[in-house]
Amino acid sequence: CYIQNCPPGGKRALLDLDVRKCLPCGPGGRGHCFGSKICCDEELGCFLGPTHSQSCEKEDYLPTPCQSGGKPCGNRATCAAAGFCCSPEGCHLDPDCDTKDIFSEP
Amino acid sequence: CYIQNCPPGGKRALLDLDVRKCLPCGPGGRGHCFGSKICCDEELGCFLGPTHSQSCEKEDYLPTPCQSGGKPCGNRATCAAAGFCCSPEGCHLDPDCDTKDIFSEP
Repeated sequence: CYIQNCPPGGKRALLDLDVRKCLPCGPGGRGHCFGSKICCDEELGCFLGPTHSQSCEKEDYLPTPCQSGGKPCGNRATCAAAGFCCSPEGCHLDPDCDTKDIFSEP
Repeated sequence: CYIQNCPPGGKRALLDLDVRKCLPCGPGGRGHCFGSKICCDEELGCFLGPTHSQSCEKEDYLPTPCQSGGKPCGNRATCAAAGFCCSPEGCHLDPDCDTKDIFSEP
């Protein structure tokens, strides 16, 4: 489930470090889900709505919490693609997400 | 230009009724621009970032104001695709945009 809206009483991770990335999605499976209708690829940007988000609906039913993206931004959101900050509720332009290095994965 | 951020002193429309739709974009040109990096198609959803938004950057340079989408929602935004409310700053899920008839054009 998306960490921002996992059901109460579920297995929430004790540490953010434990949180896995959400399911892969998008062209070539190179993106990650950010919400049940939101799929973002670092290079291509974000897809909101039915296109490329089929796998993202399945994430709602997984028991462990997930969070995709890099640097935290906005309200419980993370940088998802150049300039965009996303949560399961949507994506907005955020200068905090402008630089490329925010996406580097550990 | 996008009506929310046309430069001061430009030709702003006196009535909302005068406002044209923003430039077409996306697959088959069936979508419309909602911001310089945002293209939404009623059926396919919204694309945020470089994919399908090339034409949307040009809208910033057009002198007359534009606004795409249907029903007003959120903060100076309009319903853009099923469930999503968009402005030039981004798109978020909004129950006001859930129904299909909000997209009907005059």
